[in-house]
Amino acid sequence: MRRRILALVFDGFEMLDLFGPLEMLCADHDILLVAEAEGTVTASGGPRVAVDATLSALTPGAEDVLLIPGGAGTRREVDNPALIAGIDRIAGTAGLTATVCTGAALLARTGRIDGRPATTNKRAFDWVVSTRPAVDWQRSARWVEDGAVFTSSGVAAGMDMALALLARLSGEAVAEARARRVEHLWRRDPADDPFAIDPAAR
Amino acid sequence: MRRRILALVFDGFEMLDLFGPLEMLCADHDILLVAEAEGTVTASGGPRVAVDATLSALTPGAEDVLLIPGGAGTRREVDNPALIAGIDRIAGTAGLTATVCTGAALLARTGRIDGRPATTNKRAFDWVVSTRPAVDWQRSARWVEDGAVFTSSGVAAGMDMALALLARLSGEAVAEARARRVEHLWRRDPADDPFAIDPAAR
Repeated sequence: MRRRILALVFDGFEMLDLFGPLEMLCADHDILLVAEAEGTVTASGGPRVAVDATLSALTPGAEDVLLIPGGAGTRREVDNPALIAGIDRIAGTAGLTATVCTGAALLARTGRIDGRPATTNKRAFDWVVSTRPAVDWQRSARWVEDGAVFTSSGVAAGMDMALALLARLSGEAVAEARARRVEHLWRRDPADDPFAIDPAAR
Repeated sequence: MRRRILALVFDGFEMLDLFGPLEMLCADHDILLVAEAEGTVTASGGPRVAVDATLSALTPGAEDVLLIPGGAGTRREVDNPALIAGIDRIAGTAGLTATVCTGAALLARTGRIDGRPATTNKRAFDWVVSTRPAVDWQRSARWVEDGAVFTSSGVAAGMDMALALLARLSGEAVAEARARRVEHLWRRDPADDPFAIDPAAR
């Protein structure tokens, strides 16, 4: 059985946060769109996606990867205990967890990354920090790899992170080939963050 | 009324071909996912999207933008006269038409870009050329702007093209701000194609 990507969706998720990483990972993994309830979920921008499995019905395995996008909907969902509990349960079993943009706030609310380095969208940085100050939030990072947890900066940064995750799972050559295949210029250095917050400029 | 992006979907469309450009355009435009029939459509990779409008029921306007993604499904759809006729009808009215990757083959089948410069995925180049040799297919271009028609190279190139389209519609400053907002390093030179086919290497 191929590894599964359990991709969380909720109303107001950001399209590219989800589908950028999925594009990088889809050749080597099965994808399930996972939500709190059955039916459809509306992305920011309007497109609707169909839910493949509910959080509560899902039996995660150690081979699974949990992917959590950001988007305006995270502002509501950080205060949704049922969703956070579902994320906590799956993150506790899945081999890897990856967040994009403000999706980091949802993972942070589980308490699982307290004291650990993580990053998020630089435009929403202060809000994300306020949702869980105990995390060691990084102001400058395209993405952060910390053991089994990957967190990326805003939106498009998720694709570079996803390729690093693919490299971890399947090797550098597979990730390089995937980037070429989709004509993506992979920014391979997680520390090279052209959108970092410059504290001197604040 | 805001401009509409009429985004074509069909089984086997490539996820990032569609959602990359939509991410760049969604802040300034309304999005409709358009298909031959109602219901859901399955992207390559597995996720399903909900159709907002059928091709036949749609009344396009001069302010609309038609967006055509590529993906494995194009191999089937180039031989679907009903879909090609629907594309032809909408492209004839919409102010702009944009294709990503092998989506160019679907537009080419309408005959609307015969003799005009256009590009597509370099990995699928020979197949796309074979579907409509009368087009002036460009072997080296991140994207091509030819009047009201934008055609991009493979997958991720669609985002750079979409920002150029946004610049055309709303100005350079809006496009630059959008790229920064989604932390995308916009490759602004359509002639700079790092994935071009090198004839000497063939």
